Amino acid sequence: MDPAANAPTYETVEGGVTAPAGFVAAAVAAGLKKSGRADIALLAASRVVPAAAVFTTNLVAAAPVVVSRGHIAGGTARAVVTNAGNANACTGEPGLADARAMAAATAEALDCAVEEVLVASTGVIGVPLPVERVLPAITAAALALDATSGGAAAEAIMTTDTFAKQVAIAVRASDRAFTVGGMAKGSGMIKPNMATMLAYVTTDAALTPEACDAALRAAVARTFNRITVDSDTSTNDMCVLMASGEAGGERIGPADPAFESVSQAVHHVCGELARMIVRDGEGATKFVEVTVRGAATERDAELAAFAIADSPLCKTAIFGGDANWGRVAMAIGKSGAHVDPDAFDVVFAGVPTCRAGTALVFDEQAAAAALAQRDVDILVDLHVGSGSATVWTCDLTYDYVRINGEYRS
Amino acid sequence: MDPAANAPTYETVEGGVTAPAGFVAAAVAAGLKKSGRADIALLAASRVVPAAAVFTTNLVAAAPVVVSRGHIAGGTARAVVTNAGNANACTGEPGLADARAMAAATAEALDCAVEEVLVASTGVIGVPLPVERVLPAITAAALALDATSGGAAAEAIMTTDTFAKQVAIAVRASDRAFTVGGMAKGSGMIKPNMATMLAYVTTDAALTPEACDAALRAAVARTFNRITVDSDTSTNDMCVLMASGEAGGERIGPADPAFESVSQAVHHVCGELARMIVRDGEGATKFVEVTVRGAATERDAELAAFAIADSPLCKTAIFGGDANWGRVAMAIGKSGAHVDPDAFDVVFAGVPTCRAGTALVFDEQAAAAALAQRDVDILVDLHVGSGSATVWTCDLTYDYVRINGEYRS
Repeated sequence: MDPAANAPTYETVEGGVTAPAGFVAAAVAAGLKKSGRADIALLAASRVVPAAAVFTTNLVAAAPVVVSRGHIAGGTARAVVTNAGNANACTGEPGLADARAMAAATAEALDCAVEEVLVASTGVIGVPLPVERVLPAITAAALALDATSGGAAAEAIMTTDTFAKQVAIAVRASDRAFTVGGMAKGSGMIKPNMATMLAYVTTDAALTPEACDAALRAAVARTFNRITVDSDTSTNDMCVLMASGEAGGERIGPADPAFESVSQAVHHVCGELARMIVRDGEGATKFVEVTVRGAATERDAELAAFAIADSPLCKTAIFGGDANWGRVAMAIGKSGAHVDPDAFDVVFAGVPTCRAGTALVFDEQAAAAALAQRDVDILVDLHVGSGSATVWTCDLTYDYVRINGEYRS
Repeated sequence: MDPAANAPTYETVEGGVTAPAGFVAAAVAAGLKKSGRADIALLAASRVVPAAAVFTTNLVAAAPVVVSRGHIAGGTARAVVTNAGNANACTGEPGLADARAMAAATAEALDCAVEEVLVASTGVIGVPLPVERVLPAITAAALALDATSGGAAAEAIMTTDTFAKQVAIAVRASDRAFTVGGMAKGSGMIKPNMATMLAYVTTDAALTPEACDAALRAAVARTFNRITVDSDTSTNDMCVLMASGEAGGERIGPADPAFESVSQAVHHVCGELARMIVRDGEGATKFVEVTVRGAATERDAELAAFAIADSPLCKTAIFGGDANWGRVAMAIGKSGAHVDPDAFDVVFAGVPTCRAGTALVFDEQAAAAALAQRDVDILVDLHVGSGSATVWTCDLTYDYVRINGEYRS
């Protein structure tokens, strides 16, 4: 039997989070965004379904993170309500009451328990949420829910994002067909570190709560947790997976043979969304894929790759189109990973620039041409083991400084 | 007896590293800088003297770092030779041979053992050193040594620095008088992390090699290791202290009563030089002092302070004159320090903005006026212990991006 014949196929489809059967969404404007655009997104399953979520590791967690952590503990959810334009972080007890009120308004409109509602907020930290405007908007959103508003919801959760981030795939595995959809927002304050920016993944595959959790954590570890725009970890990060089961069949647990194909599809959707966030990194002109292999461990490979991806000197060199690979050598040396200074190779934008720790003579013109492309790859082989990791980042530009010197004002 | 009567007094004097008796310096041009300015600095004691040095912790250490680590092991030195314009890093065995040749040329000119010469290089990584131009320049520098060229040496070691960094103080303690001088270079790739950029401290106080080492390590830990421009740690950092003993008296060991006043004076000079490096941070328009107190430990305070000082979002907010203190809350939360989200206070540019983890209503105009100053203070009290640390940094500006997008080209 040809194993490839059993490999699942993915077909990209329209609809984002509402592409899988059993999900509806809506977007309305509560007046939190100065532009007047929609800033409340409601995503709901047609009933309470298995779900999982991961959250920021930032100890200064926003009120909606605190509330949602408690609500997801049961392993099920009916809906996620999100506001953009205000992070509801560092807002004390009133902020917690506001987050709970958002969940309660959603639960009342959908006629479910308040614990089945997750809450997310994104925007400026340290400003009280104008909850009196948010609550009626939630009620209006519940009335507007439909199966075609995934795209509108993806637009409503944007802040400094320049494009809406959504994807959906129809998956055909040997024994089943199902759909996975997702949306995300994020552009700055991006280094999720064991959590994510706001991201929402839906599937009609029938997963148990434990399978949701296992699939989500495995996917996030190598997708959202492998991106960085500016090394800063938000107070509000959250990623949620909801599984409606409407594709049919028995609920799949983490040990079932069918788990692998669903888990891989979730990983695929998370990877697409994560890379969209980097492509829309604040001020970015380049998409940079950093791969470190030959490391002592996968953790070491990740440390070294992040040291490159977070280095302002590497990021500005890429912005300037300068094959200044010496800064890559600097970054791996400071990373904390085990590095043999006489062993590592660097291939910068496809051009070998360093072998066994020593500079190579290379064609500067070829390197400049490769660096003029929108996508730039950096490959390091440490030659001390078999650990590898790929991290995605963007360049550091004048516009990053402009956007963040002006934001909030 | 009034203890203050015994406190040492510091009087700033001219001369930098050549201010203390027993030191001479020279600067010559070897053609490594495109500008044609002096790029070789030679600093020498009139004989072999007790000395100590600390080096970068970057595992990809430059050839001169490898050579100097070996040479300082004996606890004495006669001279330090430095070239600017080329880091001699990632240059393999030929680079090590070049660094050894620089030490040998210096030793021959000064008639001392090669092990008594330290070597330093600073500039672009991964380009072979044109040693055939450097060696004759070293010979010329040795002939030009005099006791008034400390300032010229401080200029010769500059790369992207916009001003030369030197300081000297005449110290009068209850039982002795001595002088401490220093020079440093550094503007980008600055987060020394248990070492420093290039810095040279001289004193005519009579210290033993062990006392040199103890005084230097204590000073560096809270001065050069408490600054960051861009979170990147150079491959070439080195800080050296040489003690000529020409101020007279018995050699002072680390346990002697006189050690404290000399150690404090060395700390003072290192602090002045470290803050000069930050003031000259690439593209900087602001000097930022970040203090975290009330931390569980001093290490936690340092972690939290560096998380703020390294955050691109905090640094761009300061550039933009925006009292966006929520980014400070984000930074401490991700720092790894123990943080109680309901306990911490933030005072941003003198304006209380957050108390017990919750936003305060504050006067935005007063904050904007305070942020318009050249010097900005950020104070965080974590209220969980008694650890404290102060870190110095600068803002992140368009010019940082310009300088580092164009450097090397």
